[in-house]
Amino acid sequence: MSFTADDHRYMARALQLARRGLYTTQPNPRVGCVIVRDGRIVGEGWHERAGEPHAEVHALRMTGAAASGATVYVTLEPCSHYGRTPPCANALAQAGVKRVVVAMVDPNALVAGKGLQLLREAGIETISGLLEQEARALNPGFIALMERRRPFVRLKMAMSLDGRTAMASGESVWITGAAARRDVQFLRAQAGAILAGIDTVLYDDPSLNVRLTAAELGIAGEVRQPLRVVLDSKLRFPLTAKLLALPGQTCIYTCNHGADNIARREQAGAVIRCFEGERLQLPDVMAALAADGVAEVHAETGATLAGALVGQGLADELVIYMAPHLMGSSAAPLFNLPHIARMQERVPLTIRDIRAVGADWRIIASLT
Amino acid sequence: MSFTADDHRYMARALQLARRGLYTTQPNPRVGCVIVRDGRIVGEGWHERAGEPHAEVHALRMTGAAASGATVYVTLEPCSHYGRTPPCANALAQAGVKRVVVAMVDPNALVAGKGLQLLREAGIETISGLLEQEARALNPGFIALMERRRPFVRLKMAMSLDGRTAMASGESVWITGAAARRDVQFLRAQAGAILAGIDTVLYDDPSLNVRLTAAELGIAGEVRQPLRVVLDSKLRFPLTAKLLALPGQTCIYTCNHGADNIARREQAGAVIRCFEGERLQLPDVMAALAADGVAEVHAETGATLAGALVGQGLADELVIYMAPHLMGSSAAPLFNLPHIARMQERVPLTIRDIRAVGADWRIIASLT
Repeated sequence: MSFTADDHRYMARALQLARRGLYTTQPNPRVGCVIVRDGRIVGEGWHERAGEPHAEVHALRMTGAAASGATVYVTLEPCSHYGRTPPCANALAQAGVKRVVVAMVDPNALVAGKGLQLLREAGIETISGLLEQEARALNPGFIALMERRRPFVRLKMAMSLDGRTAMASGESVWITGAAARRDVQFLRAQAGAILAGIDTVLYDDPSLNVRLTAAELGIAGEVRQPLRVVLDSKLRFPLTAKLLALPGQTCIYTCNHGADNIARREQAGAVIRCFEGERLQLPDVMAALAADGVAEVHAETGATLAGALVGQGLADELVIYMAPHLMGSSAAPLFNLPHIARMQERVPLTIRDIRAVGADWRIIASLT
Repeated sequence: MSFTADDHRYMARALQLARRGLYTTQPNPRVGCVIVRDGRIVGEGWHERAGEPHAEVHALRMTGAAASGATVYVTLEPCSHYGRTPPCANALAQAGVKRVVVAMVDPNALVAGKGLQLLREAGIETISGLLEQEARALNPGFIALMERRRPFVRLKMAMSLDGRTAMASGESVWITGAAARRDVQFLRAQAGAILAGIDTVLYDDPSLNVRLTAAELGIAGEVRQPLRVVLDSKLRFPLTAKLLALPGQTCIYTCNHGADNIARREQAGAVIRCFEGERLQLPDVMAALAADGVAEVHAETGATLAGALVGQGLADELVIYMAPHLMGSSAAPLFNLPHIARMQERVPLTIRDIRAVGADWRIIASLT
């Protein structure tokens, strides 16, 4: 059993629809669905927001009675369980569809294959694996949560061509240009949470928010502000931080249990999450983010936290904006990764994409 | 007076011909020539080797009597002086051509414009500036010698994505892959000289030669070995160095005038050039290379010499092979450039090209 050119065409359309949820479905996956009968598309849909109908339901509504005998293309295996919405596999069976083509099965091992099984038991032909890599690439966070019990972590960094991020003096000027900074906004908008270290807050007083409009993001409705998470073992977070005045939630992860320290920051608008121990441990941080339903983490950190994430195998993707400058050997490194002593201990990367963004160059590399 | 589409087409062809001399014309410029009459090419030529005829002479020979009334496209202003060959401007005038289109005038200020003047005085229409940037890009060394009295210096480097070149331990393994190392061979073959520091010779015992065949370079005749120049202030050059056993000349620049030290290295096959002072000064090195007719220097150096070349404004182009690895913050930097303390002291680059070479990425950046 193989896929036809038409199968590819319709699944590509379903992926295109799924992508419309890039900035809105968190923590749910982005899913698209196309229903085809007699060689033409009779229904389409995509999942837009958690709590709202799944892609298949939207597509079935648009299709109506024409679904009987139709072929359904869906980027993720239809669900088989009652969640906030009834199972999509049942809905497809009830609509009388003849064939269901799936890009990827559910990455949740507990339910993987159950949706397809339910369909087959209803006499529907099923097949999966069409444009699977493309479908997986749409939902790295959802897949990481299901397969690895932690969020997908994307590290955004800016460096000079010689791999430096800041002057030793601490002098703080944008390394990259306006086009690169705007590009970062689209990455932030995809994330469930934006992660930073307390040093970044203390030195740069960043906003860590999404400043694009719904029109710029190409979405309907309001722009979602990702959760801002600041790692602050000793609770040094300043009450005057710009973060607290912005729409969206700021959450401080700390090991300082001092009631007064906590109360003052809570009064200033922060949410405090206390951890055991002297210093925050990154695996604990990841577990807490996962427990809060954060699928994709967008980290904007200094060299120390970035080095710790990479060194502990907790970073999945690097997005590096490389500026056309040399900053020299006294400037701060990209990663504080001092323990690599031998060539065979190098951290291997797979470079996915390099392209110009204004005067800078954006490098996307996978760590896995 | 402007250029037609045909003018562009024929000059593009002349540039293509000029490029055939990429590996052979040193120290002369690469020049191509096309002669057109009645809308078709009646003659073509390019300069192949110093001492052999210029491009125009080759093209005129092929054209014969058809040159009368023809238009000539030549990538560099025809010469007006008697050198190893008679002036090409005279030859064109004698052949009775009607119009001469030139990409760039001679960069030698002493003769610039004289070839065109000679042609105009013979009643020939002349025009210059067509695809001038492309013509200049073919001869960066020739232009640097004429305009700045020093060779064009291309720095070849290999780094990890985080801008590191070697483990602190000195462990020596190729950072980049076979495709990148092969690509470097084509850069070496273009150069008049390959420059290295003595530390590179002592630690790596490199070959610094061209190992491509004439067929691989796409040239007729023998492969030219660029002069190998090693900067070695104290004359520590080992008599057992692999360099000395290879075809081509190895020249050691030193400040050590010890007769015995020099004699032993001369007996081993090296050419020694002595400089005044305690340590070699890079401007003196450049002057000596220029005096020897070296137009393009291909430098393969460590971080210290690379940093000195950049810091003193003596590097023109970086060719950096970026490997898909992180080597960490204890590894050696790309450049030893410790004196950049403020953002405004950064060294600005213009990135000309980034492309994949095997599993690595090659970045070409200009410093000027």
